[in-house]
Amino acid sequence: MALQPSRVVAELRELQELTGDENGAQRVAWTDTWQQAREWLRDKVADTRAEETIDAAGNQWFTLRGESERSLLIGGHIDSVPNGGWLDGALNVVAGVEVLRRIAGEGTPPVTVRLVNWADEEGARFGRSLFGSSAAAGSMADQDELRARRDSDGVALPDALREHGVDLDRALDARTELEGAVAYLELHIEQGPVLEAMDLPLGVVLGTFGVERHQVTFRGQAAHAGSTPMDKRRDALAGAARLELEIREIARRTGEGAVCTMGSVVTKPGIVTSVVETAECLLDQRHLDAAKLAAMLREAQEASERFAGEESIEVEWERIWNIEPILFEERLIGLADESIREVAGTSHRLPSGPLHDAAEVARAGIPTVMLFVQSLRGLSHTRLEDTKEDHLELAVEALDRLATKTIAAFA
Amino acid sequence: MALQPSRVVAELRELQELTGDENGAQRVAWTDTWQQAREWLRDKVADTRAEETIDAAGNQWFTLRGESERSLLIGGHIDSVPNGGWLDGALNVVAGVEVLRRIAGEGTPPVTVRLVNWADEEGARFGRSLFGSSAAAGSMADQDELRARRDSDGVALPDALREHGVDLDRALDARTELEGAVAYLELHIEQGPVLEAMDLPLGVVLGTFGVERHQVTFRGQAAHAGSTPMDKRRDALAGAARLELEIREIARRTGEGAVCTMGSVVTKPGIVTSVVETAECLLDQRHLDAAKLAAMLREAQEASERFAGEESIEVEWERIWNIEPILFEERLIGLADESIREVAGTSHRLPSGPLHDAAEVARAGIPTVMLFVQSLRGLSHTRLEDTKEDHLELAVEALDRLATKTIAAFA
Repeated sequence: MALQPSRVVAELRELQELTGDENGAQRVAWTDTWQQAREWLRDKVADTRAEETIDAAGNQWFTLRGESERSLLIGGHIDSVPNGGWLDGALNVVAGVEVLRRIAGEGTPPVTVRLVNWADEEGARFGRSLFGSSAAAGSMADQDELRARRDSDGVALPDALREHGVDLDRALDARTELEGAVAYLELHIEQGPVLEAMDLPLGVVLGTFGVERHQVTFRGQAAHAGSTPMDKRRDALAGAARLELEIREIARRTGEGAVCTMGSVVTKPGIVTSVVETAECLLDQRHLDAAKLAAMLREAQEASERFAGEESIEVEWERIWNIEPILFEERLIGLADESIREVAGTSHRLPSGPLHDAAEVARAGIPTVMLFVQSLRGLSHTRLEDTKEDHLELAVEALDRLATKTIAAFA
Repeated sequence: MALQPSRVVAELRELQELTGDENGAQRVAWTDTWQQAREWLRDKVADTRAEETIDAAGNQWFTLRGESERSLLIGGHIDSVPNGGWLDGALNVVAGVEVLRRIAGEGTPPVTVRLVNWADEEGARFGRSLFGSSAAAGSMADQDELRARRDSDGVALPDALREHGVDLDRALDARTELEGAVAYLELHIEQGPVLEAMDLPLGVVLGTFGVERHQVTFRGQAAHAGSTPMDKRRDALAGAARLELEIREIARRTGEGAVCTMGSVVTKPGIVTSVVETAECLLDQRHLDAAKLAAMLREAQEASERFAGEESIEVEWERIWNIEPILFEERLIGLADESIREVAGTSHRLPSGPLHDAAEVARAGIPTVMLFVQSLRGLSHTRLEDTKEDHLELAVEALDRLATKTIAAFA
């Protein structure tokens, strides 16, 4: 009944074999393949005493009753993007099964232990990520908008959910699931290059970045590329180019942990014989410190206005989305640090750029922490996503130790 | 029988009424509307003694026999882009008709005078501009490639030509048309802002720019916008942004008459959550001086390689198209200057950024010159294209005087 980290690796490969193809993982939420993965997970948990329930948002819970009704939550998501990797999401739940087995094998735990497989973390089919965890956290505020969403085949989101037993109008009833939870733990691949660059297998996550996401549109004047002298041009692309270079300076001035990205520029009319009239830029800025994030946004806005003035063009900002930074719990960060040092010798604290279900749980006021395991080449959301097997095994051990320490701390 | 410049304006409006709609001119070559415009033109010329012939490339010729077989050519194109303006191309031919009427009214001219309506200057339907003039000039070298071209409905170019009596395999037979030509004159709207900025109605064109057109592709590495620290990025868009700003410096350093344009950037994957992996830029560089054009290209290439090195990305150049500068004839430039000064007081010499049929004729060794008339707001290829009526009338007068001076010089 001892923890078998190698079993987690074997089971992840079994899951990939069952639900992936030559292009990668295909466990897109609200599809048959996803449902198949959930049934597979149910079979894996069957050898513990944990009881399965599906909540109103479609989250899959496995509850191992303890001496107290207060509960320790371990969570992840078995859904993937199309052509995804074998670890993003699934690692969390499969490692959680192993920890559940170990705890169950030792008898009745002092607190209830629950493994949750969140529904639709990726939002790959309908463009709405963190579906299940935001419902459980009570932060899902866009149900009217969700009702109107359709997938690329025109299927409406409520219809797809109904096929999997979920009534969108009742999804927020999942809020009751977090009652009595004393802590939430999540293990995830880093999806970035930091731990690999530091040659460390594991890190403890301080929180998830706040994000400011905007469409920045520069508007100039289309003009013939041959007949318009340079000093008569109002080139929208010049504004975009200057902003692209400036956001890097803003991030550098702000210091470690600041990231600014222009991920897309769309030029119109976009032909070789015309000066660019409109340049639509997508800008993403992130920081763990809310004040620094706000300052980065302000600096980018001011710079864009200065560039627009100098280039005789116009600039318009439209917020696409934003979220405040979400900090994980100090005491759990300390326990996670200890757990990592015990299994790997050295720990490292880092923020998470991507969002995770853990952020929703933390927003709901549940003490939360995450562990990151090294990602090779920082790749995720591709079949090339990978992590060394010995790092995966260390990660399972660290999660297990963290669970033990957390139970002791909160029992 | 005196020249009536106002008739040209009235006839241009009549043509627009007949062949345009609320979106602008629709005289796209090799369409019924274009054919209708050609028939309209035939009717307009009918009151002169000029004989109509259609050459092997579909060019429409009106020949007024003179005392000598040596010929003065006046040319333009009645075809337009879809949703085009009322002047681009048509001004040339309709003004030419008026000059032909005036000359015919005075009896038999000392040299033969021919008005040519070139077929498919715009290349709007099949993407191959200067079709008829390049066939007549003997510079059409892409017939194999033309055979494979299709319009957006899938119609092959040779089939569309055949419907209008043109056999692509015989198009080069049009070369015989330029035999005996002593000079070629063309009046066109400027399509740029230079004359308007100088408050001048007319200018004489020194030649057409040489053009270097390239796709410049920067390749970096897609990476998560949240989890990839700034110093670990290989951002292809940074290369594109730096090149966009650098080409403006290159043009400014090169001096007056140099233009460099990045008309399009396509970013891939082009999503807000990823650093740009590939940035495909379209670069257009133009100059009337071949050596300066070559230097501008070299400077841009060197800069792009420097940027690629500094950004740890790659850069690749692919030539899309190029053409050498084509200079018009000194003596004709002088006569054009005189003609403009006589009707407008002041002349101005300027290069042409856009290509014109005149460039093809000049390449064939025929002494050539063009007149530009002011374009309002520099607009063309849009129904908003416009020129003041009094400027149009001055332009017709200048063309007429230039024809007289040219006949006298070459008779």
